[in-house]
Amino acid sequence: MQRSLYLYNTLTRKKELFEPLHAPFVGMYVCGPTVYSDTHLGHSRPNITFDVLFRYLRHIGYKVRYVRNITDVGHLENEVDGTGEDRIGKKARLERLEPMEVVQYYVNRFRQNMAQLNVLPPSIEPQASGHIIEQQQMVEKILSNGFAYESNGSIYFNVEKYNKSHNYGKLSGRVIDELLENTRVLDGQEEKKSSFDFALWKKASPEHIMRWPSKWGEGFPGWHLECSVMSTKYLGEQFDIHGGGMDLMFPHHECEIAQNVASTGKEAVRYWLHNNMITINGQKMARSLGNFITLDDLFSGQNKLLVQAYSPMTIRFFILQAQYRSTVDFSNEALQAAEKGFQRMMNAVQTLHKLKHSETSTIDVKALQNKCYEAMNDDINTPVVIANLFDSVRWINSIAEGNESISASDLDLLKEVYQTFVFDILGLTGEINLQPGNKLVGDLISMVLTMRMDAKTNKDFKASDRIRDELLKIGVVVKDKKDGFDWEIK
Amino acid sequence: MQRSLYLYNTLTRKKELFEPLHAPFVGMYVCGPTVYSDTHLGHSRPNITFDVLFRYLRHIGYKVRYVRNITDVGHLENEVDGTGEDRIGKKARLERLEPMEVVQYYVNRFRQNMAQLNVLPPSIEPQASGHIIEQQQMVEKILSNGFAYESNGSIYFNVEKYNKSHNYGKLSGRVIDELLENTRVLDGQEEKKSSFDFALWKKASPEHIMRWPSKWGEGFPGWHLECSVMSTKYLGEQFDIHGGGMDLMFPHHECEIAQNVASTGKEAVRYWLHNNMITINGQKMARSLGNFITLDDLFSGQNKLLVQAYSPMTIRFFILQAQYRSTVDFSNEALQAAEKGFQRMMNAVQTLHKLKHSETSTIDVKALQNKCYEAMNDDINTPVVIANLFDSVRWINSIAEGNESISASDLDLLKEVYQTFVFDILGLTGEINLQPGNKLVGDLISMVLTMRMDAKTNKDFKASDRIRDELLKIGVVVKDKKDGFDWEIK
Repeated sequence: MQRSLYLYNTLTRKKELFEPLHAPFVGMYVCGPTVYSDTHLGHSRPNITFDVLFRYLRHIGYKVRYVRNITDVGHLENEVDGTGEDRIGKKARLERLEPMEVVQYYVNRFRQNMAQLNVLPPSIEPQASGHIIEQQQMVEKILSNGFAYESNGSIYFNVEKYNKSHNYGKLSGRVIDELLENTRVLDGQEEKKSSFDFALWKKASPEHIMRWPSKWGEGFPGWHLECSVMSTKYLGEQFDIHGGGMDLMFPHHECEIAQNVASTGKEAVRYWLHNNMITINGQKMARSLGNFITLDDLFSGQNKLLVQAYSPMTIRFFILQAQYRSTVDFSNEALQAAEKGFQRMMNAVQTLHKLKHSETSTIDVKALQNKCYEAMNDDINTPVVIANLFDSVRWINSIAEGNESISASDLDLLKEVYQTFVFDILGLTGEINLQPGNKLVGDLISMVLTMRMDAKTNKDFKASDRIRDELLKIGVVVKDKKDGFDWEIK
Repeated sequence: MQRSLYLYNTLTRKKELFEPLHAPFVGMYVCGPTVYSDTHLGHSRPNITFDVLFRYLRHIGYKVRYVRNITDVGHLENEVDGTGEDRIGKKARLERLEPMEVVQYYVNRFRQNMAQLNVLPPSIEPQASGHIIEQQQMVEKILSNGFAYESNGSIYFNVEKYNKSHNYGKLSGRVIDELLENTRVLDGQEEKKSSFDFALWKKASPEHIMRWPSKWGEGFPGWHLECSVMSTKYLGEQFDIHGGGMDLMFPHHECEIAQNVASTGKEAVRYWLHNNMITINGQKMARSLGNFITLDDLFSGQNKLLVQAYSPMTIRFFILQAQYRSTVDFSNEALQAAEKGFQRMMNAVQTLHKLKHSETSTIDVKALQNKCYEAMNDDINTPVVIANLFDSVRWINSIAEGNESISASDLDLLKEVYQTFVFDILGLTGEINLQPGNKLVGDLISMVLTMRMDAKTNKDFKASDRIRDELLKIGVVVKDKKDGFDWEIK
């Protein structure tokens, strides 16, 4: 049962049973960051989405090779101004830095942000600049198969020719013939036969910094190429899963399909998965639109759009509260709600580990476990997993209050369900409250609460109340209970 | 004065005034890890040594581009068995993994270890596999300049020919003519004209996994080549500092010099710096000798050679207690002494921040500052810096006890000296005691100590003693002082 995973395949537009080509091995490729600026909230979504899929595939027994690239070669696509200029080169010239120094700086920051979000490192993190030879080899294959042409030292993919024998547009559902009819040739693109043609190899202009020799002269690879090359280099000519943001579906992923087919005759990807966007005031959050909030801003609260700082786990929880194919709209209210929800779940974890078991259970833990697996198997439906876990938060609190009971074996199972879904699969971490380094905090609080208990025993209620108030001032909430007391950090 | 930095140049065998080619810019290259296994104590030394130099150069106002490579292409040199087999390939075949997956795994662990040791990331961390084209270009130049020859699909550097017009051996002081006379040709090396010749490009055997196309057939670059190529690519044909372990002086750095001269006619490096080895029972610690202790083992204490765990800062302090050109012998006793010394220094930092100033000083802080700069300027003499700081630890404790006094401006200067040398330059961190995340610990302890003060005021000495004893049990030491109390975490 646990392996009956259904994933929504953009290519077929339906949920399909996931059957790897070479079980128990699974190959997964996800489009990674372009490292010329800081990671923003929008970028965190594919990374968290496919991190959860990676974790779940491993949990249900697959051996996953997860490849996520780093785009460090400037590419031709510019989201807004369309000048076709190299974005990394631009920044480097501006700062008078070696491009790879800019790249290293932002790669380091990206990795730090991912670690903060508890996103596991992928199995391989290949850089485009490290695979120039392989990219040149694919250009040669596409050229020799007749699907590309040279023009003034650059090599372009011939979309019109490819579309005669194959379906360019099948992933995104665009009908290329209609598009071609309605498109005029753009200025400065005279090198191309058609406006839809895209560069496989681009001749470097004299001021272009990142360049490599090739049989077509000095240049650099087109942006779409690296993903076709690095995915198949590390996962094989055909592999299981390709993920990325929905905004990459056209033209990037469409071009990847065309490149793979044009070079090998085969489609590389079995399951195309796309996460939806994070929006702000209904508009996609993107650097090019200027409406982005970086992760560092979110963690520090230093941004005029933010009324407070939000912890990495609040961000992670916020994103997982939506199914990955739905949009998520940014707002302070939504983040504050996520913060409360996450904290409520973490408090339940603390309570869970202090529960006492009874002879019998009044709750059905096995059913909870099944519902969580069913939700994950239904196209990674994390909001349903979270809703089920919140049902159990109510149980946990009821058991703690003595209104429900749980048997020893069910208590073990409930702890296992929490460990599995909250920590292993959703990838949440307890942050300060549960870190082993905070043993001293726990010890100190226990000591203080024992002193308070002594005061109560001596009927010195003034002293015991003062201790409670002092603790509250420094952020420790004491709750009196029938059989003692409990505490939590605000 | 602060910029009169003298560095011991292995090439000239004397301490030389450091004068960068293009001040205020400084280019520094250091040989980084071969990522086919975990980082061990021996590896930590060059990384910490050149981290301190990097920090110091920046402190005295230079803009440093620090390049440290990652050797991810299997190379021909094998420290012990000399079979010339690709070490990364070996491991990958053993584990049936993609070599780049092995590489990624160990790169991630290396980066984590460096972060634990508070080693700053270098400006650029280039991977050998990402610079195959550039390596092929250098091979072509050396070939066309007549200092290399092709043999059975591999390209070898012609040491004998090079040595006729240049001095192969100048860095390490070896006289190649004598060596050639005394050396017989080794089995399986018939491709080479002389046993000293080294591969620039190696033909890949059929089972060799990591391979790239070239005009000489499929193969991979020789190990020595990547450093010549990546240093000059990112720092220019001539640059300031090249660092590495003394064990790399011959043949690796000797080969680098030969490659650079043979391709450009110029020596690339102005200052060659070499750190000495970490020994264990008088023998160099090396993976190939099987006498190594990994950093993870040290941090966890899980190794039969260890009687306890040692924190990353203990390791860092241990290494900085010796000048980088001296050997450091591993022993539990020495590490325990380092642990105590480091803790003593951190306690002094805590005390320093609680000191009260007087009208006048009985100590000379300016002289301390000068001595610390002089020690750093004398070939990065960290043990002398530490000795001077320990002199000031005695002052700090004397001032705290009221036996010495310090003026307000001297107190500010002393804090600055500590910030500069302890934290910024030596790169030590306060570990748990000084982390901002431990504010709650401080708040709780203050609260408990206030309760203890109240008990004392009420002459309830039994209660006040009990609080002291309870705190001691959980690791908090309370010290009574004339004007109140102080505490520290054990």
